[in-house]
Amino acid sequence: MKTVIIGGAATGMGVAAKLKRLNPEMEIKVIQKENYVSLGACGIPYYIGNHFDNSQTLIARTVEKFREQKIEVIINSNVTKIDFKNHEVYYNNNVEYYDNLVIATGAKPIIPSIENISGNNIFTVSTKQDGENIRAKLASTKNVLVVGSGLIGLEMIENIKTFNSKIDITIIEKSQRPLQSLFDEEFTSVIEEKMAEKNINLIKNNEVDKFVLNNHGDVKGAILKTGEKILCDMVILAIGFAPNTEFLQNSGLNLNSRGSIIIDKYCQTNFNNVYAGGDCAETFGFLYNDPKVLYLATIANKHAKIIANNIFKAQFFEFKGTLGTAIVRFFDLELARTGENNFVLENQRVLTKSVLVKDKDHTNYLENQNDLVLKLTIDQATKQIVNAQILGKDKAVMRIYGLIGLMWSRTSVDEHLEQIDLPYSPPFSRTTDIIQIAISKLV
Amino acid sequence: MKTVIIGGAATGMGVAAKLKRLNPEMEIKVIQKENYVSLGACGIPYYIGNHFDNSQTLIARTVEKFREQKIEVIINSNVTKIDFKNHEVYYNNNVEYYDNLVIATGAKPIIPSIENISGNNIFTVSTKQDGENIRAKLASTKNVLVVGSGLIGLEMIENIKTFNSKIDITIIEKSQRPLQSLFDEEFTSVIEEKMAEKNINLIKNNEVDKFVLNNHGDVKGAILKTGEKILCDMVILAIGFAPNTEFLQNSGLNLNSRGSIIIDKYCQTNFNNVYAGGDCAETFGFLYNDPKVLYLATIANKHAKIIANNIFKAQFFEFKGTLGTAIVRFFDLELARTGENNFVLENQRVLTKSVLVKDKDHTNYLENQNDLVLKLTIDQATKQIVNAQILGKDKAVMRIYGLIGLMWSRTSVDEHLEQIDLPYSPPFSRTTDIIQIAISKLV
Repeated sequence: MKTVIIGGAATGMGVAAKLKRLNPEMEIKVIQKENYVSLGACGIPYYIGNHFDNSQTLIARTVEKFREQKIEVIINSNVTKIDFKNHEVYYNNNVEYYDNLVIATGAKPIIPSIENISGNNIFTVSTKQDGENIRAKLASTKNVLVVGSGLIGLEMIENIKTFNSKIDITIIEKSQRPLQSLFDEEFTSVIEEKMAEKNINLIKNNEVDKFVLNNHGDVKGAILKTGEKILCDMVILAIGFAPNTEFLQNSGLNLNSRGSIIIDKYCQTNFNNVYAGGDCAETFGFLYNDPKVLYLATIANKHAKIIANNIFKAQFFEFKGTLGTAIVRFFDLELARTGENNFVLENQRVLTKSVLVKDKDHTNYLENQNDLVLKLTIDQATKQIVNAQILGKDKAVMRIYGLIGLMWSRTSVDEHLEQIDLPYSPPFSRTTDIIQIAISKLV
Repeated sequence: MKTVIIGGAATGMGVAAKLKRLNPEMEIKVIQKENYVSLGACGIPYYIGNHFDNSQTLIARTVEKFREQKIEVIINSNVTKIDFKNHEVYYNNNVEYYDNLVIATGAKPIIPSIENISGNNIFTVSTKQDGENIRAKLASTKNVLVVGSGLIGLEMIENIKTFNSKIDITIIEKSQRPLQSLFDEEFTSVIEEKMAEKNINLIKNNEVDKFVLNNHGDVKGAILKTGEKILCDMVILAIGFAPNTEFLQNSGLNLNSRGSIIIDKYCQTNFNNVYAGGDCAETFGFLYNDPKVLYLATIANKHAKIIANNIFKAQFFEFKGTLGTAIVRFFDLELARTGENNFVLENQRVLTKSVLVKDKDHTNYLENQNDLVLKLTIDQATKQIVNAQILGKDKAVMRIYGLIGLMWSRTSVDEHLEQIDLPYSPPFSRTTDIIQIAISKLV
């Protein structure tokens, strides 16, 4: 019985490790593009921000460690074709037969078709090499242009400023607001204020038309769609991801319109014994079962466990769906969110009721009392919470755990819930917590 | 229609304010012992610790503010008798007729019958005056003896050290461990280590036999049951509370064996139109409906709301019970807990399963990664979480919100819950959160 896994990141290596624990006799081969596996890619911005020195720290577990466990890892290898009929995977000049196949090729940064996009010092944030290259170059960089103000764009801004607060940063966003799909305007306006405070030049509703290079091919600026010129000696592209599935086009494997592999809730593709999970696969919402394309390590890890269990037991372990939970730090600001955004809610024709509460994180008489903002949205039909967004400082947003607990339990917002026994102690909270205030306004 | 409220703390003033909002025509009289109302007693240790300068800050709302709202507040008045048959309250030299009566007299610190207990510089932590007296005396104090290592004892230790780290502290605990009814040994042992680190002398399994006074009547030491002598020039008594209900003995009002007023879930006593709530009343557990005596501001606030609603609407707003949630800081340590302790679980004959997980609060490559310990206990029959305890630093224990959400929703621990969509971001958490690890071990 042989399981072949394509891709050595969270899902792939997660399946390998779990499956080996479940069945030490199982033959497991991982085919990996890079010369390493188990990259903690979420750490790259923090490596760039000088929070740690050795990029090797980003590697959660080495190839050697996996090999010690008798998991075969074939590095530096690109899968070019899969013959699903004959159970064969083609890579470099080899063919590998499989009994079970796991496709966990992840996603790659989108690189837009812009003139001079291949100029020097235009980077994405995805591989270990990206991190090393950016950090090395930052030492001689004065002006950075960040393209895209999603989670990675914001993490990069914070970390570039941590690396060297004198580096000037311009950030350009195609849509009307940063983090538009994650947070409502009441929250993103505070991010914009923080950018202004940090002298970060945010340009919204605009795009790069072309990059300008010098004689050495180094980027020296960008011209925007509106004609505006931006000086920069480094560009960070953070406009999003696309699944690594080109080699699967026309293979017979079902892909959605964005190229994500379509899987059922057992992480099975349309071919028997072929599983997919993580960033290369489509996922779905916990609340409304709607298909989603998200690139989250938490989903990748859960998919891994489900795939390993299903291969081992041939039972049906189900993925339960995602709330799209996210938490992000932006300098001293913290934002957390979970649940469906307005776009999805409107699409699902959900009648909602929302409340926005502005309060404080703890008692007024203790130091460092900070503003705390919570927006809660319920489905008017079920009275269940369908979206929660929190903004605060100093970990007050960890309250999102409570709201996730309620959403995951599909609990109704009513007089019973209003009395939820949340903790009170002067350094941590007020006698009536912001969550209770919000619930009382929705009852 | 006249409502008389006895007691001007959280429950009493909470009822007054809410009832006035519900029915501005209602005649409301509050009879209060002190010359102030709405004392935030939980702030007293922090006032002593010099976190703020003006003890008036402890007053959430003044008598004048309530009077502006046409709530009559009669201060410096002790109720001595209630004639429930004729609806009359006797205080000082007056009698007040009521249509509805609310008894919210709270609790007072237990003062043990120990020789020389009335010596100078032996304090409790309850009134504003207590706070002022302790803080004034601390300036000339070298050795403090704290009697009792519950929440207030620990808060006092931290704040005495914040006031002046050179003050020597001895703490004496009758039972085997500090915070014994709140936390298991795995957690309290860490508190004991922290005490040792801070050179605090913890004496367990022992009690004060008598205090020793000097010629001026000032305390200068204590002799323990074991004969050991402790030098001290100040004593903080923090051995617990008892309800302020002596004046109700033999009045016909039902009290439990500890003197707490017995109420139903609507906060009604055994007399029509007589309500009680907060620290002077008995409460009950959310999980097993068992009667409990707890002194928590969160319960007092909820009782207030229920009483006001029930008086106004003559409807039945129910109290849902308590999880005994608590959160406490002890220097850089933080502990949070919720649910039933082993004593109650054994009493209720609940078969349980527990897991203790030692993990870290966030990713290893970011600064200030700290130990995080979680103990989860489930009821084997229902698979519901019945107890959670967390120990950590830097607000990582705010995860207790998540566990409270699950307990309040009576959610079962199963494969579904294992996938709960908790947030991941390097500064806040790891890809698999400690809550998920604990749940996976209980499935």
